[in-house]
Amino acid sequence: MKAEIIAVGTELLLGQIVNTNAQYLSRELAAMGIDVYYQTVVGDNMERLKEALRLSSSRADIVILSGGLGPTQDDLTKDALASLLNRSLHIDRMAMDRIERFFQDRGVVMTENNRRQAIAIEGGTPLPNETGLAVGNAITQDGTHYIVLPGPPKELIPMFEQQAKPWLLQHVLTDELPIYSKMLKFAGIGESALDERLSDLITEQTDPTIALYAKDGEVTVRISTKAASESEAMVRLDELQERIRERGPEFMYASEDVPIEKVIVDTMADRGLTLSAAESCTGGLVAESLTSVPGSATMFLGGIVSYTNEMKRKLVHIPQALLEGDDAPGAVSREVAQALAENVRLITDSDFGLSVTGVAGPGYAERKPVGLVYIGLSQRGRETEVHELNLQGNRETIRLRATKALLYRLWRRLVSEGSEQA
Amino acid sequence: MKAEIIAVGTELLLGQIVNTNAQYLSRELAAMGIDVYYQTVVGDNMERLKEALRLSSSRADIVILSGGLGPTQDDLTKDALASLLNRSLHIDRMAMDRIERFFQDRGVVMTENNRRQAIAIEGGTPLPNETGLAVGNAITQDGTHYIVLPGPPKELIPMFEQQAKPWLLQHVLTDELPIYSKMLKFAGIGESALDERLSDLITEQTDPTIALYAKDGEVTVRISTKAASESEAMVRLDELQERIRERGPEFMYASEDVPIEKVIVDTMADRGLTLSAAESCTGGLVAESLTSVPGSATMFLGGIVSYTNEMKRKLVHIPQALLEGDDAPGAVSREVAQALAENVRLITDSDFGLSVTGVAGPGYAERKPVGLVYIGLSQRGRETEVHELNLQGNRETIRLRATKALLYRLWRRLVSEGSEQA
Repeated sequence: MKAEIIAVGTELLLGQIVNTNAQYLSRELAAMGIDVYYQTVVGDNMERLKEALRLSSSRADIVILSGGLGPTQDDLTKDALASLLNRSLHIDRMAMDRIERFFQDRGVVMTENNRRQAIAIEGGTPLPNETGLAVGNAITQDGTHYIVLPGPPKELIPMFEQQAKPWLLQHVLTDELPIYSKMLKFAGIGESALDERLSDLITEQTDPTIALYAKDGEVTVRISTKAASESEAMVRLDELQERIRERGPEFMYASEDVPIEKVIVDTMADRGLTLSAAESCTGGLVAESLTSVPGSATMFLGGIVSYTNEMKRKLVHIPQALLEGDDAPGAVSREVAQALAENVRLITDSDFGLSVTGVAGPGYAERKPVGLVYIGLSQRGRETEVHELNLQGNRETIRLRATKALLYRLWRRLVSEGSEQA
Repeated sequence: MKAEIIAVGTELLLGQIVNTNAQYLSRELAAMGIDVYYQTVVGDNMERLKEALRLSSSRADIVILSGGLGPTQDDLTKDALASLLNRSLHIDRMAMDRIERFFQDRGVVMTENNRRQAIAIEGGTPLPNETGLAVGNAITQDGTHYIVLPGPPKELIPMFEQQAKPWLLQHVLTDELPIYSKMLKFAGIGESALDERLSDLITEQTDPTIALYAKDGEVTVRISTKAASESEAMVRLDELQERIRERGPEFMYASEDVPIEKVIVDTMADRGLTLSAAESCTGGLVAESLTSVPGSATMFLGGIVSYTNEMKRKLVHIPQALLEGDDAPGAVSREVAQALAENVRLITDSDFGLSVTGVAGPGYAERKPVGLVYIGLSQRGRETEVHELNLQGNRETIRLRATKALLYRLWRRLVSEGSEQA
């Protein structure tokens, strides 16, 4: 099955927005075993839109269109497709009801152009829009399948998931088995290092397939298989998951698509454990990452951003002798990382205390190089561990990597605690 | 001038990465007065790449290619273009020297396939790669201009800025005047509200042109003009800038493309002022934003993330009577925002103290609705101001908007202080 994606919108051609829809759709189609050969972006222009449609129709089995379903005269996607297929347009009653109700509920008079959002193509299947007003469409003609989706990602993604994907599985991929996937998440290891550990599995892959993605200091491994039933798929995926896990059991923190901070927050909340953090060069990023997870209020007690030496003394009670003087190790040191982690834990009376101190750059501090970072992990009744990191990258990257490295160490500790408990 | 952008790379068609290059190039071309009619993505496949090239050549004056310049057999862009144009390939000596030096410096043996990165097309202009190894190319044939750029944005952007853009101005846009732009930055006002205030200016625009973009709680207005000289352009741009500023002088915080936290850090560092922050629902985002700016170490003294009531008492000395009890206003209140801002300022002995307390959701707190946030701004010798916000969106959006609203209030205060001083 060959597919093409056409995104419609002058705002894309002006560079006002980035085409994340193409990425989302490409990834979803790849996971369904459908090959995407081209992605095209075309403006809100009838002639050029029809030219793009004609070309894609001549080459692909499936053409997915996004954007151009709004209420204005610029929104031409359905008109262009109907014209190409020689079909008429009509108002979809259900979509129109939804639009009218939307304006009624808000006590606002509906302008006439909103009717355009309810337009459907003769003989096609309207795809209801659960999160917006413009109805989508799915239609087959001359062996080519067309799917029309709205432009805003918050409308496109649910419509693809709930309407278009089932339609494709039912009407287009009938001879093919459905695809099932699992996402395995890794931290504490880079993409290329993980790729190397899995290289024989990746080379010999046929079904299930294996794909790696790296983002924000984490690596995602997506494994997919075609199967007649979910239970059959899960047997195969679980078996491959175990083979992958064996290659780096100390790095795989989840078998679903969640960030490591979510696993940490959930695990600690479950076990009734509490946490605090004292940060220097990460400037609040550790606290921010953890508190971005809903439910963190029960386990994250407090954070201190002690950027200056004076604040390290005042807020986290770091002894002057560690910070300044000829023989002092200085703020960026193993000793200060340890004291920050232990003291923030004691001050907040929490089970765990985290710390980061380092040089995020640009520019040196205490004659220490950019990228030198110490992370500390203190735990009630256990010896404090401190790790030295030598990180590459700009200020933002160094802060992010230091944060992820610290969260990884905390996760490791929780895992080993858990196995001791068990 | 009509342009098309072709991005080459199977990783784009698999959805592993998003095509930010197309956005960057589209925006840059638009600013130069060049219309982009199509963006295309094609995989690492010689036949389909040549088909895409042929089609773009037949329609456009300028074809910009990105990606496919690496060392592997998959990297086909220059081969495809040379084949289409019936030109030979050769090794560019300067690029080859650079590659050899790169490996020598690292004491690593260069594998033979790295020579591919130095390939240039006969009769074209090699575009040096300042941040990577693969050389770019610019070439004109049969009235169409081709520019070949590397895929990684950190190589593509500098090569476009320093090599491709000057080449286009000198060889292609010779009859046209160069374009000059300014970026005006706004905070504290939404994109649609600003759009409305500027609507007559936008409607009547010819030259200079006006374009609005919104991102992360800030709005950017780009104004551009064609002019024979920079000084002539600046006269026109400064005049339009003044007309735009007049429509919302209290919202425009910069006439260059910087985030508001950068303006705050620079202004405070200049004036020798210091700052601290006590955060609840933003969980460290205020501290993280400010400390993301290089040089913030001199003005940002410390931050406290007091997520729980106990920590508000312990770390920021908030009276129990404000937090709990039948008559207590509770943690999410005007009173607590005020106390947090004042106390963190006193604890750290800084000139300004910031605070945020609110409900970021999901789920209610103290029977208060999601999105209710109080922000506080305390200043040495001045009355503390507190603002109530009622924010829409998910947890992430509410945290971001609360942070930006607080930074906006701080910037306003700095502006009024500055004018009092002056």
